[in-house]
Amino acid sequence: MPLEKSWIESANSPETDFPLNNLPLGVFTADGVPRCGVAIGDRILDATGLEEAGLLRLDDAPVLDIPFWNEVMELGPEAWAALRARLHELLREGAPEKDKVAPFLHPLEGAELHMPLAVAEFTDFYAGRHHATNVGTMFRGAENALPPNWLHIPIGYNGRASSVVVSGTDIRRPWGQLKGPNDNAPRFAPSARFDLELELGAIVGQNSDGPVTVTEADEMIFGYVLLNDWSARDIQAWEYQPLGPFQAKATATTISPWIVMRAALEPFRCATPPRDVALLPHLEEPGPMLYDIALEVDLTPEGGSPTTIARTNYREMYYSSAQQLAHHTTSGCPMNVGDLLGSGTISGPTKESRGSLLELSWGGKEPITLGDQTRSFLEDGDTITLRGAAQGAGYRIGFGPCTGKLIPALSDPYAR
Amino acid sequence: MPLEKSWIESANSPETDFPLNNLPLGVFTADGVPRCGVAIGDRILDATGLEEAGLLRLDDAPVLDIPFWNEVMELGPEAWAALRARLHELLREGAPEKDKVAPFLHPLEGAELHMPLAVAEFTDFYAGRHHATNVGTMFRGAENALPPNWLHIPIGYNGRASSVVVSGTDIRRPWGQLKGPNDNAPRFAPSARFDLELELGAIVGQNSDGPVTVTEADEMIFGYVLLNDWSARDIQAWEYQPLGPFQAKATATTISPWIVMRAALEPFRCATPPRDVALLPHLEEPGPMLYDIALEVDLTPEGGSPTTIARTNYREMYYSSAQQLAHHTTSGCPMNVGDLLGSGTISGPTKESRGSLLELSWGGKEPITLGDQTRSFLEDGDTITLRGAAQGAGYRIGFGPCTGKLIPALSDPYAR
Repeated sequence: MPLEKSWIESANSPETDFPLNNLPLGVFTADGVPRCGVAIGDRILDATGLEEAGLLRLDDAPVLDIPFWNEVMELGPEAWAALRARLHELLREGAPEKDKVAPFLHPLEGAELHMPLAVAEFTDFYAGRHHATNVGTMFRGAENALPPNWLHIPIGYNGRASSVVVSGTDIRRPWGQLKGPNDNAPRFAPSARFDLELELGAIVGQNSDGPVTVTEADEMIFGYVLLNDWSARDIQAWEYQPLGPFQAKATATTISPWIVMRAALEPFRCATPPRDVALLPHLEEPGPMLYDIALEVDLTPEGGSPTTIARTNYREMYYSSAQQLAHHTTSGCPMNVGDLLGSGTISGPTKESRGSLLELSWGGKEPITLGDQTRSFLEDGDTITLRGAAQGAGYRIGFGPCTGKLIPALSDPYAR
Repeated sequence: MPLEKSWIESANSPETDFPLNNLPLGVFTADGVPRCGVAIGDRILDATGLEEAGLLRLDDAPVLDIPFWNEVMELGPEAWAALRARLHELLREGAPEKDKVAPFLHPLEGAELHMPLAVAEFTDFYAGRHHATNVGTMFRGAENALPPNWLHIPIGYNGRASSVVVSGTDIRRPWGQLKGPNDNAPRFAPSARFDLELELGAIVGQNSDGPVTVTEADEMIFGYVLLNDWSARDIQAWEYQPLGPFQAKATATTISPWIVMRAALEPFRCATPPRDVALLPHLEEPGPMLYDIALEVDLTPEGGSPTTIARTNYREMYYSSAQQLAHHTTSGCPMNVGDLLGSGTISGPTKESRGSLLELSWGGKEPITLGDQTRSFLEDGDTITLRGAAQGAGYRIGFGPCTGKLIPALSDPYAR
């Protein structure tokens, strides 16, 4: 699919994350009030304002009066398509209503961005084979790297929706109960092995009642965001047996501020990798359900300049979000509008394509170099920025940066 | 504390779960509309109606117009106390406003009851020592029964809020991926080892921002419900390594319909058991934070009569809900109004006091007897009823039954 041209010139640049083909959905502050917005080139279109002005009508009643996109999701796939069609009509080159729309554009640069959705529940998966193999090799040795179930089901666990935050939010280094393999007893202290995880987040846009097929699951997905599932490796090492990660993953999960709708990614679909073991029929992929999305991770030390520490691609995943969502419903578990599914860490086959410091520094044994510094895990003041884009012919479908700065632990977590 | 007498005679019976001392909060249908209600003897007091009539005023704006108690929780502990004081004033023997209140009473028997709260997020713990020892012994042998972290932290994992249902809701036997130890490959089939878990649920009534002490955590708890965390043991066995239970616990969690406020349980506080290993200071119990609540589990086969299969007490837990909630915030995880914390299965030291069939039948090796039938795990048509009450001098603080019937699995989960 070629670039679709807009009368907003910046949207026609091959460099922008937000051409007319993209139209990602976010929430921004205009006139002191959070409003639903659409990124286009170097502008944000005030969608709430358009609805108020009668230029965008998705339902009988307003659905953009609350600054989250959940109500639009609830309207269902036909409304999602109608939204894109109407935005396209208003923003395309030669749009007849151009002059009416222009007053609703705001500069993207410097805009205050908020959570684009109210997250209902958050589930994190472990569906990247390179990541699972790396982690398993470190903890259980190369021969037992993948757990026996790994090639048969997308392993997932419930996370905490309350700690999902939007890009730009500072992340406070957590305290936790820690016990090293040589310690006699645990102690309560700030995490010393705090890490990032490069993931893609799928946003569930429809409710389910009972098990759904992989095809139905794919149709339930409203869109995608970049997702950094901050992880305290030392807290996790002590707490996670036998019932999984808990406080290690509860400090924060950062998402990028723009929901890239599934429709914008259609031209970039690709299949999951070949399987060693056939999946059971209910998890089989009926068509390509991954996407070719180039991803990278930048680390910027306090006062320093950024270093790209990883480059990988979403097509490396072993299970798609649709397969994960289908698995999530097998038990009859109801899924709801606003549920967020983390893909799992997206590592590639090479050392440079690993999506966490745990892997990049091989558990701290091989610190990575950043100019004149090294890193095994994150240090106070470090900023992590995830970037991602699908590359079209002369344009890109980008996500905008997903960034967060690690700030020091509280000196006394119970001081009031 | 003695029985507080009400002008509603049935509330003065030593047999009722709902004397004036209790005043638990639920949601029921009256005139075809769900409304907030308070159980008193054999009646439900229409609290929404009282608020509409100006007889109950908790805030400047109505807080009982939406049929959940969340808005009352948001008002905070002073409002919780004011609510109880006002209800007491209206319902006590000799209440001057008796005649104004009487029209707002409805029969409890046959009333349609709904979820008393909107559950924000659900966390399940594993904090009963007898249960953890039983399960650990079955799976890892008696010497390694308790994981190394168990005596140091209340082990918990995030569950699924969307599948929490109110007592009386039928539970559909789930499908899942199953693989027995002697099977070559997994298969997708209905769970054959579906079980109950007898728990108490603590309802978080205030938000947190950063770590809270155990004392602060106790003050954040609004009340308690009985909780049955239905569990598919065969799904769990295959899926839970390395990241914990997921679909095994996602079919349903049933709660009792009446929130017993923390204040009603004050006279029944008791301490957690003696510790083998001292807890780190941030988890120490500053005072008694368990409750003496007698619990039992009835199993009723389809068309049969109930058998009490377990009798135990909440005072058997190793960690209180306050300790669990404090631990839950150590990482900075924000807790919210409406969060639900499952205590973990409440088993006692004897065989008759085990809170799950997994333990009662010792993994299916020692089926229990129900009249002329036996059970290792639940069969289609079985109804499980949890009951619980704290016993005062001449009165009881009861929860009302927490019940659910297991109905057969779908013959084809993907038939439409």
